[in-house]
Amino acid sequence: MKAARFHGKRDIRIDEIPEPTVGPSQLKIKVAWNGICGSDLHDYLAGPIFSPQPGKPHPLSHEEPPVVFGHEISGTIVELGPDVDTNTFEAGRHVVIDAVVGCGTCSQCSLGLKNLCATLGLIGITGWGGGLSEYIVTDQRNVHVIPDSIPLDVAACIEPLAVAWHAANRANFQPGMNVLISGGGPIGLFVLKVLKARGAGKVYVSEPSTQRRNRALAHGADAVFNPLVSDVFSQVIAFNEGAGVEIAFECAGITPSLDNCLKCTRSRGTVCIIALWENEGTLNPNVLVFGEKVITGSACYVQCHPDVIAAVADGRINNVADLITRRIGLKDVVELGFEALVNDKENQIKILVRPA
Amino acid sequence: MKAARFHGKRDIRIDEIPEPTVGPSQLKIKVAWNGICGSDLHDYLAGPIFSPQPGKPHPLSHEEPPVVFGHEISGTIVELGPDVDTNTFEAGRHVVIDAVVGCGTCSQCSLGLKNLCATLGLIGITGWGGGLSEYIVTDQRNVHVIPDSIPLDVAACIEPLAVAWHAANRANFQPGMNVLISGGGPIGLFVLKVLKARGAGKVYVSEPSTQRRNRALAHGADAVFNPLVSDVFSQVIAFNEGAGVEIAFECAGITPSLDNCLKCTRSRGTVCIIALWENEGTLNPNVLVFGEKVITGSACYVQCHPDVIAAVADGRINNVADLITRRIGLKDVVELGFEALVNDKENQIKILVRPA
Ligand SMILES: [Zn+2]
Ligand SMILES: [Zn+2]
Repeated sequence: MKAARFHGKRDIRIDEIPEPTVGPSQLKIKVAWNGICGSDLHDYLAGPIFSPQPGKPHPLSHEEPPVVFGHEISGTIVELGPDVDTNTFEAGRHVVIDAVVGCGTCSQCSLGLKNLCATLGLIGITGWGGGLSEYIVTDQRNVHVIPDSIPLDVAACIEPLAVAWHAANRANFQPGMNVLISGGGPIGLFVLKVLKARGAGKVYVSEPSTQRRNRALAHGADAVFNPLVSDVFSQVIAFNEGAGVEIAFECAGITPSLDNCLKCTRSRGTVCIIALWENEGTLNPNVLVFGEKVITGSACYVQCHPDVIAAVADGRINNVADLITRRIGLKDVVELGFEALVNDKENQIKILVRPA
Repeated sequence: MKAARFHGKRDIRIDEIPEPTVGPSQLKIKVAWNGICGSDLHDYLAGPIFSPQPGKPHPLSHEEPPVVFGHEISGTIVELGPDVDTNTFEAGRHVVIDAVVGCGTCSQCSLGLKNLCATLGLIGITGWGGGLSEYIVTDQRNVHVIPDSIPLDVAACIEPLAVAWHAANRANFQPGMNVLISGGGPIGLFVLKVLKARGAGKVYVSEPSTQRRNRALAHGADAVFNPLVSDVFSQVIAFNEGAGVEIAFECAGITPSLDNCLKCTRSRGTVCIIALWENEGTLNPNVLVFGEKVITGSACYVQCHPDVIAAVADGRINNVADLITRRIGLKDVVELGFEALVNDKENQIKILVRPA
């Protein structure tokens, strides 16, 4: 079968590889759609970062480059290993994949926090095949059946929605809270959708791109600000009845964004960093001290898929297909996929690939 | 009476001022001892910072320079206003002062968080007299009676101990937790004493000064590290059975300290910043993200005095007098007090002033 494999920096190739075969507790899944993610881009442009280095196999997958890419996966079960739970899984059912793989034995895994595993693995980044291929086999623990009512293209967005859902959990988000999202790219917009689905009060989005601000408005933002033109703090205070927000989500990965998040958060409020940063940032710790503010990080997700699937199925999270800005075939994954996300940030949010 | 007043940067003068008179709900206190604090030093060296600017009276005290300094106060009640609760207060009782003054009406004050008041005032910094004078009058809400068993010099340390106690609360400290204290100056050492009193597991202290490291050992630190010589992360991991600490207290106010705190904290652990920083710091947000770590700030204290007084009275916090490195009279407050803390950091921890 054909698979897009990451060989190294700016080197993704469509390779012919053997079709994978199911182990005892595994499912073979025909991939319907796979979304390209910001962390894929980090590896593509400057990697291997999350993906294993040549000569240094990942401790859990034991794989080194090239690895099949793609971890935002929807598909259909085509084969079940002999030990698979047939009460849950059957051939023909639509599924999505939880890409996070823990070792199962470290202190964090023992607490149920596989997303913080000391040797964290990610399907489609550190091995175990990926969504940018016709088939993938995955342990049943990482597979979630979805109702047929969720279209498979929308289903490919459940993984990034889980990232957003988890961030809201990490920030102790509660219904009614007023929130700032700093950065209206894919993560920021998925956070917006999740917060609105979970009963947020006002959600403000700060984002320099006009197209992205318009998208944020279309997806429920109560106000949007251009941080290059207006003072985000004054804007938030003006729109938020003079008060800071309970939570600010840092989805841009740059110091001015973190600064705004800290300033706009009220005393004892939380800044939740979801973005991966390419450089160090600067911080004025006194702002934290005098307001007893909290900064927390959010990594991947853990046990969020059932909640997200339910919210998409019952329509609390809706209109997701509107964030899918392009659908391409596997052969175009570099030019129309990765390169488009690098060069056409204004217009692209989620690009889905149909591997076969 | 004589009082040390802050007139401006490096300008503290012993002035003759009228003895204050009690208002209806106020107590007149004869000051026994007043400790000099790190925040006093900030104002002395580079202020006014916390203290009001000339021509800009503090919104609550309505005072501008010169203001009487000193907020780590112990003393004896000498006079009660007519509305003072005589069940709690009587002439001759020993007391300490909670220096935090809130407006009483803002959103934070309404939540009982006067330490986060929008117009925060501090007795002895932003007005209302101070401990560096023979007498002070203070509203009964800010006065705590202490048992006669606590010596009045030790009692002057209850205020900075409350700062440390509050930081432990903010970091959700629980008995048995292993902790790093980064910075073994006065704040760090008071945090050490509070954590040991509250049942900490291992407490590690990172501090460049040999004298301060030795003090930390004498006051219960399980291990001390010199961050200029050894890698604090490796040391903590080695002493802490391979794991990070649950909480790291940042008590140094510089980037290498914050870096060590973040590195040494285990996943989902907390870095609590207590230090006031003179400059911005740098931060690698990815360390927060991948470990889902938390940074929180801690400001002053709120409702901590009763707990600290009880812990000092019953001996859980003991040996405090050993951290009092010098006792001076009011006339020597600049030369033997402020200047000594600036120039002889190695040997000075808490300098107490007896105003009369
Ligand atoms: Zn693990
Ligand atoms: Zn207030």
